[in-house]
Amino acid sequence: MDTSNFVRIVEVGARDGLQNEKTLLPPDVKIALIDRLSSTGLKTIEATSFVSARWVPQLADAEEVFRNIRKVPGVSYPVLVPNEQGYRAARAAGAEEVSVFTAASEAFNRANINATIADSLVRFQPVLDSAKADGVKVRGYVSTVLGCPYQGDVPVADVVSVAKRLHEMGCYEISLGDTIGVGTPAKARAMLHAVSQEVPMHAISVHFHDTYGQALANILACLEEGVRVVDSAVSGTGGCPYAKGATGNVASEDVVYMLHGMGMQTGVNLDLLVATGAWLAAQLNKPTASRVTKARTASA
Amino acid sequence: MDTSNFVRIVEVGARDGLQNEKTLLPPDVKIALIDRLSSTGLKTIEATSFVSARWVPQLADAEEVFRNIRKVPGVSYPVLVPNEQGYRAARAAGAEEVSVFTAASEAFNRANINATIADSLVRFQPVLDSAKADGVKVRGYVSTVLGCPYQGDVPVADVVSVAKRLHEMGCYEISLGDTIGVGTPAKARAMLHAVSQEVPMHAISVHFHDTYGQALANILACLEEGVRVVDSAVSGTGGCPYAKGATGNVASEDVVYMLHGMGMQTGVNLDLLVATGAWLAAQLNKPTASRVTKARTASA
Repeated sequence: MDTSNFVRIVEVGARDGLQNEKTLLPPDVKIALIDRLSSTGLKTIEATSFVSARWVPQLADAEEVFRNIRKVPGVSYPVLVPNEQGYRAARAAGAEEVSVFTAASEAFNRANINATIADSLVRFQPVLDSAKADGVKVRGYVSTVLGCPYQGDVPVADVVSVAKRLHEMGCYEISLGDTIGVGTPAKARAMLHAVSQEVPMHAISVHFHDTYGQALANILACLEEGVRVVDSAVSGTGGCPYAKGATGNVASEDVVYMLHGMGMQTGVNLDLLVATGAWLAAQLNKPTASRVTKARTASA
Repeated sequence: MDTSNFVRIVEVGARDGLQNEKTLLPPDVKIALIDRLSSTGLKTIEATSFVSARWVPQLADAEEVFRNIRKVPGVSYPVLVPNEQGYRAARAAGAEEVSVFTAASEAFNRANINATIADSLVRFQPVLDSAKADGVKVRGYVSTVLGCPYQGDVPVADVVSVAKRLHEMGCYEISLGDTIGVGTPAKARAMLHAVSQEVPMHAISVHFHDTYGQALANILACLEEGVRVVDSAVSGTGGCPYAKGATGNVASEDVVYMLHGMGMQTGVNLDLLVATGAWLAAQLNKPTASRVTKARTASA
């Protein structure tokens, strides 16, 4: 168990957040967003996704965005790649860290990519092989770890098995995602505990969506269990494709506020993060989903 | 430490929630709200406040509302009373349980009622004496337990001393309120632990506002510490008079969702609670602040 005081925030707003926003932002706004995030002290900022523009129109400008963001030394800018083709495009644009993703739910994989989990992992092997040869770090996302829109419950053993396999295949960090946000603290903690028996705790991140308002409580339970990496999105961008109008990613501002209040360190300047969140909400023309940013920008 | 599985929810939406809403609801809507809440399985429903209409216009109809709600056997309907006059009005309307309130912050008391904490407690003595003589249960609210809009930090020792005094004076339950919602889990837990050294845990409730998004995480930490009574407001009504536009009480739906997900019991039917929250949000003509209700009523 990691009892250190430092929690690394993996900021996923520019990718996981924006890809579920219906307002399309022009590339220069995304570049400004990432550059602003770079100045907050964040150490990992997911920048974009090299997927087919047909699937994710919001991120069709991946190359332009990635080429033009300011790369701050010491900060990682992973990009999501669905396959070898995406990996090559990401590398051509200069990416030095990538992410791959699969679900822990068989039904979810079947519905989304018409493949079993085992088959989807096989498809990543070339990406992981190339990445290893290129000295590129790979982050592995496991989705639907606490529930699936198709099959409902997801056995913890399935989550453990996928996480273990991704780690064995070479992912340096496994992000455990409650994609539909249905999880509650005791289940989150038990799931994390089970995964940590097969993947070292320092190689695990937790990724919660606030669809049912449980994200921060789940994060607290997982911190108590020993996790020290947390995914979140500035301004709580994103949503849930399975419940339109619902809340998206947990807001980075609210996570950082909690951590700092508990005496933990993140290296993040909360004032700059709040300013960035308020600015992003204005760009998206919607109220911020961060309650910290709402409170800080409210009139007294 | 209470390790039981049952958590009693004290529903405060009709009083603490509505008194901070700017949309004034007519008495028949408030009566309908409380009657709906009575059918959800809740055991304690704060109904209204017998305070001066000049201070709280939203609750000027206290007598009419209280006389006309359906009193379900086994359910308590406490009403807030600021003084002996309020107590007499509440009793005349048929109240069998009342609440009194004071702050843990000297600066807050001075600003709001121009009295020291010690003096404000003395003012309650006649209410508690009358209640004792009348066989009326009294709940004691302590506000600003984790921060004050005037003095900032509030010493834990001050919270303990006020809570202990109210309990000694005859309050059967002490509700510890983070009025401005600034608290974080470790501080909430430490504060609760300190109070529980002087007031039995079974006589303590926690009352969190979600101004900074911390409410559910704080509740989780306090459950771990042993508390088994939680105040919340359906649909997360209310707001923060010190940060206009900010989030109000933690939503009862989100609390119940978490508790049930953790295998705890509340006796509350979540479906009926969500329906009531959605209905109340429509009456207030604002989006619900409950993310559970938002997700449940979102389109797929």
